[in-house]
Amino acid sequence: MITVLTGGTGGAKLVDGLRQLLPPRELTLIVNTGDDLEWWGQHVSPDLDSIMYVLAGMLSRDRGWGVDGDTFECVQAMRRMGAAAWFNVGDRDLATHLTRTQLLRSGRTLTEATTEIAAALGVQSRILPMSDTRVETRVTTPDGELSFQEYFVRERYRPEVRGVRFVGVERATPAPGVLEAISSADAVVLAPSNPITSIGPILAVPGMREALCETQAPVAAISPIVGDAAVSGPAGALMAAQKLPVSVAGVALAYEDFLDLLLVDEQDADAAAVLGETGLHVHCAKTIMKTAEDKAALAATVLALVTPSAARAG
Amino acid sequence: MITVLTGGTGGAKLVDGLRQLLPPRELTLIVNTGDDLEWWGQHVSPDLDSIMYVLAGMLSRDRGWGVDGDTFECVQAMRRMGAAAWFNVGDRDLATHLTRTQLLRSGRTLTEATTEIAAALGVQSRILPMSDTRVETRVTTPDGELSFQEYFVRERYRPEVRGVRFVGVERATPAPGVLEAISSADAVVLAPSNPITSIGPILAVPGMREALCETQAPVAAISPIVGDAAVSGPAGALMAAQKLPVSVAGVALAYEDFLDLLLVDEQDADAAAVLGETGLHVHCAKTIMKTAEDKAALAATVLALVTPSAARAG
Repeated sequence: MITVLTGGTGGAKLVDGLRQLLPPRELTLIVNTGDDLEWWGQHVSPDLDSIMYVLAGMLSRDRGWGVDGDTFECVQAMRRMGAAAWFNVGDRDLATHLTRTQLLRSGRTLTEATTEIAAALGVQSRILPMSDTRVETRVTTPDGELSFQEYFVRERYRPEVRGVRFVGVERATPAPGVLEAISSADAVVLAPSNPITSIGPILAVPGMREALCETQAPVAAISPIVGDAAVSGPAGALMAAQKLPVSVAGVALAYEDFLDLLLVDEQDADAAAVLGETGLHVHCAKTIMKTAEDKAALAATVLALVTPSAARAG
Repeated sequence: MITVLTGGTGGAKLVDGLRQLLPPRELTLIVNTGDDLEWWGQHVSPDLDSIMYVLAGMLSRDRGWGVDGDTFECVQAMRRMGAAAWFNVGDRDLATHLTRTQLLRSGRTLTEATTEIAAALGVQSRILPMSDTRVETRVTTPDGELSFQEYFVRERYRPEVRGVRFVGVERATPAPGVLEAISSADAVVLAPSNPITSIGPILAVPGMREALCETQAPVAAISPIVGDAAVSGPAGALMAAQKLPVSVAGVALAYEDFLDLLLVDEQDADAAAVLGETGLHVHCAKTIMKTAEDKAALAATVLALVTPSAARAG
C-alpha cells in the first residue's frame, strides 16, 4: 500500500502517473482541504476534486483542474447576471459540488461524502481528506488577508505574501483512516505539491507530523522546486514568506523531521550532492511532468525507490 | 397597469403576448409558487422562472420552460453519478436557482430575491410571488401524496387524482405589493393557467379572493379548458378531482365570486351563450396559442376587453 500526501496540480500529475502503475486498491491519497471554499452556497474542495477526477480518468489535462471537455454555461450565466464569478466552475464539475454539499447538509462527514462521490465516479483507490474539520488556508498580503483561492485564482498570486496561516487547524483532527494510512503504508510519498499551501495544511493537522515520524514506512518527497523556482504556481513566494530557502534544500528543511528520501530534478545534481552530505537520501531524476509518459516515469522512479523490494535493496 | 395572475405554460404564453403589446412597467405579474421545490439543495421556482425568462426573452419556446438554447451537462453528470435526476434543470437555468438560493440564505425574502434576479436579467415588469411564505401544492393519489413536481414531472400526471391541498397556505400572507397590485390595477387578468394548481394556490392565500372581489378593476379570466379538456397538462383531471365540471362552466365556477369576464375559445360558442345567461360577460376568441402571433392576438383581445377605453365603452 502506497500512501500519498497531495494537493494542487503537481500532486494530481504524480497521481496520474501512479494510477498507471499501481492496482487502484493499493493507493491511498491524503488530500489537502485547506483550499476548500464556499462558492455560491456550494462546498468546493479543489484538491479532492482534482484527485477524484484524475483517478476517474476525467481530469482536464489542459487545464490541470476540472472535468475534461466540460462546459461553462452556468458560470457564464452567473456572470451575465452580474455575479463576481472569478472562480470558474464547469457544468459537470458543478454536479460534484452540488452532490457534496447535499451530502454534507444531510449530516455526512467530508470523508463520507468523498467516499460516496468517488465511488459514484468509479474510483477504487481510497481518497481521504486530511481532516473532516474545516481548516482554511489564509494568505497575508500588504492589502490584508485572503483565502487561498482569492490569492491564487482571483489575484493570480500576484500580491506579495507576508505569511500563511491555517485557520481552525488547532482544533482539527486527522480524518478517520488518515493516521492508519500513514502507519500501515509500505511507503509514504509527498507529491511534488506546494510545501506551504498544499502539503503544509496536511502537516499542520495535529498528529500528522508525529505519524510521519513514527511510521516504519519510508517517507519520500518529490521536490516541486527546480533550481531556484517552483515548477509552477506560487510555491517559491510562499516558501520565501515562510523563511525557507527556495531550493531543494528548502524543501528538505520543510520536511526534515520525518523525511527519509528526497527526489529532486536532474538539474539539481549539485545541490543534491550537498544535501546528501547531511545524511538525507537524495536521488536525481527528471521530475518535470509534461506528458503521460513523464508522469508514469516519475511515478515508476519513486515507486522503485520506496517500495520494499527496491528501497530495501537500495 | 395590468395585473396578471399566472402559473404554468399557458400563463407564460399569455405573458409572452402581453409583453409584445404593453410597456413593461405597465405589467405586474402575481405568480404561483405552490410548485416550488428544493432540488439538490437549490430553491427552484418553476413558475417564477418561466415568467422571468419569458419577459427577458430567454424562455425556451420549444420546451415551454427553462432557458432557450440551454445545455444539460450538470444534470447529465448528476445522472451518471446515480442521482435521481427526474427534474431537469439546464446549466444556465441552474445559475438562477443558485442565485435565488444564495439570496434566500442571506436573508432576502422570495419577493426581494425575485426582484434582484429579474433586474439582473433585464426585466422591467414587476414580478411578485403570490406569497413569501412557503406554500406547497400536494396531490393525493391512490398511492399516496405527491408534491406537484413529483406528480407533474416525475409521474407525468398519470396517477389518478383524489385531491389537492396547499400545505402552509393558512399561515401564508400575500407577498408585499400583491394586494395593492390587485386593488390599484386598471384590469386584472387570470391567465389561461390550470385553475386548480396554477391559479388555485394564488387564490388560496388568505386575503386574495377578497381583494379580487373588492377591486374596482374588471377581473377577466381566459379559460384553459376548450370543449371538455385542457389545452395542455392535467387541468381536466385536477378540476374533476375538485368536483368542478371540466368545461368553461367549470372555469367560471372556480372564479365565480370575483369574475367579471370570461374569455373562452371560439369552439365553445354554445357553452358561452349558456354561461352568458347567468349574467357573466363571456367573450369568444381564438385562445389556443401556438405562434408568437397567436399570443399577441390573444393578449390584444383580452386587453381590448379589459382596459378602460375598451371595457368601459363595451
